[in-house]
Amino acid sequence: MCGTDAPDAAAGPVSNGSHASKANPASSPYQNVNDFISNVARFKIIESTLREGEQFANAFFDTETKIKIAKALPVSSPQSYEDCKTICGLGLKAKILTHVRCNMEDAKKAVECGVDGVDLVIGTSSFLQKYSHGKSIAIIKETALEVIQYVKSQGVEVRFSSEDSFRSDLVDLLTLYKAVDQAGVNRVGVADTVGGATPRMVYDLIRTLRGVVSCDIETHFHDDTGCAVANAHSALEAGATHIDTSVLGIGERNGITPLGALMARMVVTAPDYVINKYNLKALKEVEELVASAVQINIPFNNPITGFCAFTHKAGIHAKAILANPSTYEIIDPAIFGLTRYISINSRITGWNAIRARCEQLGLKMTDDEVKEVTAKIKQMADIRPLAIDDTDSILHSYHIELQKKQAQQV
Amino acid sequence: MCGTDAPDAAAGPVSNGSHASKANPASSPYQNVNDFISNVARFKIIESTLREGEQFANAFFDTETKIKIAKALPVSSPQSYEDCKTICGLGLKAKILTHVRCNMEDAKKAVECGVDGVDLVIGTSSFLQKYSHGKSIAIIKETALEVIQYVKSQGVEVRFSSEDSFRSDLVDLLTLYKAVDQAGVNRVGVADTVGGATPRMVYDLIRTLRGVVSCDIETHFHDDTGCAVANAHSALEAGATHIDTSVLGIGERNGITPLGALMARMVVTAPDYVINKYNLKALKEVEELVASAVQINIPFNNPITGFCAFTHKAGIHAKAILANPSTYEIIDPAIFGLTRYISINSRITGWNAIRARCEQLGLKMTDDEVKEVTAKIKQMADIRPLAIDDTDSILHSYHIELQKKQAQQV
Repeated sequence: MCGTDAPDAAAGPVSNGSHASKANPASSPYQNVNDFISNVARFKIIESTLREGEQFANAFFDTETKIKIAKALPVSSPQSYEDCKTICGLGLKAKILTHVRCNMEDAKKAVECGVDGVDLVIGTSSFLQKYSHGKSIAIIKETALEVIQYVKSQGVEVRFSSEDSFRSDLVDLLTLYKAVDQAGVNRVGVADTVGGATPRMVYDLIRTLRGVVSCDIETHFHDDTGCAVANAHSALEAGATHIDTSVLGIGERNGITPLGALMARMVVTAPDYVINKYNLKALKEVEELVASAVQINIPFNNPITGFCAFTHKAGIHAKAILANPSTYEIIDPAIFGLTRYISINSRITGWNAIRARCEQLGLKMTDDEVKEVTAKIKQMADIRPLAIDDTDSILHSYHIELQKKQAQQV
Repeated sequence: MCGTDAPDAAAGPVSNGSHASKANPASSPYQNVNDFISNVARFKIIESTLREGEQFANAFFDTETKIKIAKALPVSSPQSYEDCKTICGLGLKAKILTHVRCNMEDAKKAVECGVDGVDLVIGTSSFLQKYSHGKSIAIIKETALEVIQYVKSQGVEVRFSSEDSFRSDLVDLLTLYKAVDQAGVNRVGVADTVGGATPRMVYDLIRTLRGVVSCDIETHFHDDTGCAVANAHSALEAGATHIDTSVLGIGERNGITPLGALMARMVVTAPDYVINKYNLKALKEVEELVASAVQINIPFNNPITGFCAFTHKAGIHAKAILANPSTYEIIDPAIFGLTRYISINSRITGWNAIRARCEQLGLKMTDDEVKEVTAKIKQMADIRPLAIDDTDSILHSYHIELQKKQAQQV
């Protein structure tokens, strides 16, 4: 049950704030991110596909799958003690953290795994105090301080997080965080465990907390009400330093802030920082790996990698996009190693559009081959309406045929 | 190219603000929505599945499909003049609006359709001024005032919207909006056409605009950076009155604020208002209708209707959920006519868990039948790991067999 600090893993040249120079030349007071407290241009990611992600309904990761995902991230961790040791032994360029309940027994096991850091977590909402662990805030504080002292004495990093923070009493929360900060934790965590927080609630709580603790602030957002990406952004604006993500957002219920969607958000807010720090071209592959491991489809509406994320259909949009892609595109697909697609109703599709789609799909064909498959598509479209999926299937199967023919000729 | 004002259509008893009494008894300053300017407990929806939705890559709605969706919403509209007249003739309990470019020719055609309202739209960003229509702000303003006067003279409602509002010059925007407000438009529209806005940008712009115009404010958010739901919520907090949605968010590129996810968000923020006003139990069916019409899967991570949205897996979660569902659930699935599911690894699954899943899927079986199918599932799980999809398939096919047997007996 570990997560990996991807940014420390993937750190590269960083240029903070310089995208301000790319701001719209028109007056636009809403785009300024140079607020002294904002971390939007220096955030870090806690990649927890192998911790939160394993709580996803379909996830049953075996050790081999975990290692594969850990290497692709370049990040992560295992559910069991043994898996955790194996991952630690991989020597990945990432910090390995385990996520345990805030008690001495769990903390000792975590330290024995040889991890770089221990994440302590305890429920602080009245719901969790009553129906989960049954402990009062006074007891939680006392236990936390003991466990923190032990972990620190072992030379290991320690984070303390409340669970269901947004339904916890504010005074309780601030009292706890202040005490653990003074006890020397490396980081405190705020969690929207039930996914009910709004961006303004997040901004206000993190902004308040930023004035109470001096350590780093990690945030964890569930997506039950569709706000997990926006809440992460608001948290960074308010001074949070770290965001928990998982690939495709897989996690308990409908999941948490997805790594890819957060990259889409942050590359718009702080393009230089994100482009220089992360290998964005690896996103599609790791999403496909995880989707396959947990047997799900990449959602049609996924930012960046959804099958139509860079597809433009309306005539008026298509015209302007051809003149200047920025008219209807806030993200250049090339940054993620992808290409845009101007959709044309299949019955009237031209071979130039089909050639563009082949390039997008990575299918190499000569112009004559593209013309031949375009004719096939038009033929099909006269019989029944074709969706992009259908067209793609025809292109893929035509491409496989081509490869077979070439193999026979060799 | 119409949209329907669902709220006017589905209006029922409304009780604003009363959910404040349900707030966490602990001190929690972040939950108060009784801000004088906030419309979170009296918002209206512009359902535009048949307008924005038709710009979705896979959407090719024929008249029959449009009518089916229009009736299911209870809402919507057509691409062509004839379809629009047909829909207007249906006598649906909803206002029918058409969405046209801001010029006299388009406006006249719209009025001839017999619609209740005309939505005028024009690009105001420097990108769209330069690469799309090529008009200056002065010309836009002059044309807008002429067209508005004509539409009003025909006794039809009129809305004026800028396109790509967040990349438009603030002074230009406010000048235009102020002029059309004084000319008597019923509503102005703000659009994040490229999906790059953040909740705080939205709050600031809408809050500023709220002080400049006295008419209603409609907002339209694309989801390219995953913030479309949160942006809608922030807009309402800042004083916007209307939110554009489409079923599953289908629209240009990866789409706009999805109707279902917005309902998830708003039912948490303003439960009484949402539960009394909308028929939330109809959500799943209309999503399935639209998903089938445009040949997509409902995303695994969709709020409310994603296949694992109410599935709890972690042991610690499952235990607390059984004691009190509110510990790890911000939304009661029953509000949407759905049920929760406590996931148990299939190899050790019990028949009680399977019975719960059958109820969730609406498959009626006797206890003996549930026990028999549980044995089948355990048998399969010994051979290979089962995902929920697999289990569901087994349950569905077993249920079909049962129905066949019953039919033979009758």
